[in-house]
Amino acid sequence: MSAALRVTYRLQLASGESAARRALRLAHEQTVELPPEAVPPGAEALLARVEAVENLGPGEALATLAFDPETAGADLAGLLVLLFGNVSLECGVRLEEISWPGDLLARFAGPRFGIDGLRALCGVRTQRALLCGVTKPLGLPSAELARRCGEIARGGADLIKDDHGIADPPTSPFAERVARCQEAIATANARTGGVCLYVPNLTGPAATLPQRLETLRALGCQAALVAPLPLGLETVRTLAAESGLALFAHPALAGAFFAPEHGIAPEVLLGDLFRIAGCDAVIYPHQGGRFPFPAASSAALREHLRRPLGALRPAFAVPGGGIEPARVPGFLAETGSDTIFLVGSHLYLAPDLFRATADLAAAVRGGTA
Amino acid sequence: MSAALRVTYRLQLASGESAARRALRLAHEQTVELPPEAVPPGAEALLARVEAVENLGPGEALATLAFDPETAGADLAGLLVLLFGNVSLECGVRLEEISWPGDLLARFAGPRFGIDGLRALCGVRTQRALLCGVTKPLGLPSAELARRCGEIARGGADLIKDDHGIADPPTSPFAERVARCQEAIATANARTGGVCLYVPNLTGPAATLPQRLETLRALGCQAALVAPLPLGLETVRTLAAESGLALFAHPALAGAFFAPEHGIAPEVLLGDLFRIAGCDAVIYPHQGGRFPFPAASSAALREHLRRPLGALRPAFAVPGGGIEPARVPGFLAETGSDTIFLVGSHLYLAPDLFRATADLAAAVRGGTA
Repeated sequence: MSAALRVTYRLQLASGESAARRALRLAHEQTVELPPEAVPPGAEALLARVEAVENLGPGEALATLAFDPETAGADLAGLLVLLFGNVSLECGVRLEEISWPGDLLARFAGPRFGIDGLRALCGVRTQRALLCGVTKPLGLPSAELARRCGEIARGGADLIKDDHGIADPPTSPFAERVARCQEAIATANARTGGVCLYVPNLTGPAATLPQRLETLRALGCQAALVAPLPLGLETVRTLAAESGLALFAHPALAGAFFAPEHGIAPEVLLGDLFRIAGCDAVIYPHQGGRFPFPAASSAALREHLRRPLGALRPAFAVPGGGIEPARVPGFLAETGSDTIFLVGSHLYLAPDLFRATADLAAAVRGGTA
Repeated sequence: MSAALRVTYRLQLASGESAARRALRLAHEQTVELPPEAVPPGAEALLARVEAVENLGPGEALATLAFDPETAGADLAGLLVLLFGNVSLECGVRLEEISWPGDLLARFAGPRFGIDGLRALCGVRTQRALLCGVTKPLGLPSAELARRCGEIARGGADLIKDDHGIADPPTSPFAERVARCQEAIATANARTGGVCLYVPNLTGPAATLPQRLETLRALGCQAALVAPLPLGLETVRTLAAESGLALFAHPALAGAFFAPEHGIAPEVLLGDLFRIAGCDAVIYPHQGGRFPFPAASSAALREHLRRPLGALRPAFAVPGGGIEPARVPGFLAETGSDTIFLVGSHLYLAPDLFRATADLAAAVRGGTA
């Protein structure tokens, strides 16, 4: 077969079952879906091979399976099925790491802009970190959401995204809101001489996406927020390939995969798979915020977004989820400058949105002087 | 607001936090994404309301939130974000039940065929249960997969589906395999005088789906297997609305949501949401098979697929995942006749595929005489 897709799973073993036997069951489940005694001669070609098994301690083991990447083709839906489709219905199987063969990666275009391209879109010529503000909350009229965009842009944020829950509500319908926010940011940019990039939330019934894309293009928007798991990774890949927009990925639904003993490691799901789907920047819940997320997962995710991965461009890590402005300088020392800090709620807890943004923007810029 | 979308969550409480406070946090997280003190006047319209809180015991509570359905619009991606997007990243939140307002449901067409329509496609004029066989495994050439289809069709199965892991592999490319299998089944039908319906696996890179649909139409296929979570529920809804095919839903990836204390109840995810997406039949892992799945979840799922849900047609429950033929009569007594038994592996463990299918088909038919 062509170079194998090597996938390492951490397995919780039922009492009495050996790690080798459990790994073999997994290999069958994810490819031929037959017990060994029912696999006919001639069907072994695409059966996953157990390459390594390592006991980690009582009842726990690591197993590395080698899949023929032709099984999934160049298809992220098929890849998800191959990696974790049926086995999601079991217990105690966590996908820990993937070693990607180059010829599989070559089928995916990946991020259109990547870290360098997104910095250029924001007019940032140094290697500094970026600040992304958020216009919110759901329920406000478009005019007020736009006013908030203007404050944040004047304050010096590099980007402003819609809250991901604001799609097309009656209080701020998509076309109206996007036009108002884009205009408010353009006005602020003209005043500051800076470049703040608007990242509107692109979702909706599948049939409306082409029209919404047209709206964004007509307004001159250059980026959009997408939620790859609710939308489907192939839908996002199509947007990355055809929309011309830089894509920010929201981790909505992803937490369902993050149980300690069953699921997919965040760095694989948000790091590898979202990057392969073409996301230029990937939002994740940073430690110390309001979501539980291990620091080790954050670090691994950042590394996966940037590490060599075929010819795919690196993507920005976007720590968010309740980041306190006062902690940003400390986080920056840890994350490095290829980072977009996403700060929403805490700017709205401050008495003055413009001033709070300006202070935070200075801290983000200053941290990498 | 219009009639509320009422959603009940089971919450694991952190020590020291009251159920009421936890429910309020959840309401904020899933709508305005701001703490109460930062929600501006005028933004309460779409903030979820906590309607009821019930303590279940130490550290556990039920909370019912009322969402304005306008928040999600007529969009399954948006609905997933609203129901479980951000909160997926927390711990100890399980979506237990949804009360669907009629005007929200009216935006969705639901299953095109439903139970009656699918029975008619299979030429079944009585209210009996159906049998679905599986052509497998991945790795066999198309000719052999087709030969297996012929055996199963001659044996009297009502339907035959592709294994969901067989997409477009080099051993059995999509167009070739589907043509061969469809032909083998047609030949068997001509011989038996029966109607066995082929359910090919429809997946692939997004850009190839229209061509694959064309292939299915040209061959006269009337059904397809889809995996709504890997493909995206909106993609499946579009297929349901536009393809003219009856859709079988595979639960690939769904198990990530089925942890006991965090996720989405199977009857809500596979029952309500897959049905709203337009799936005519929904596969689930039946108890006693090779996947752990509580009998109570099976029963609830079957009920959700059939219960009144606006004007949406009921969908078939398709128990599978390692069902032993000998247990089918017992299961039938429990599931009732609006059931499609999906039996794959166990027919291949028998010495004669045709004979094993014929025996099982008789049992499935006989059980409802």
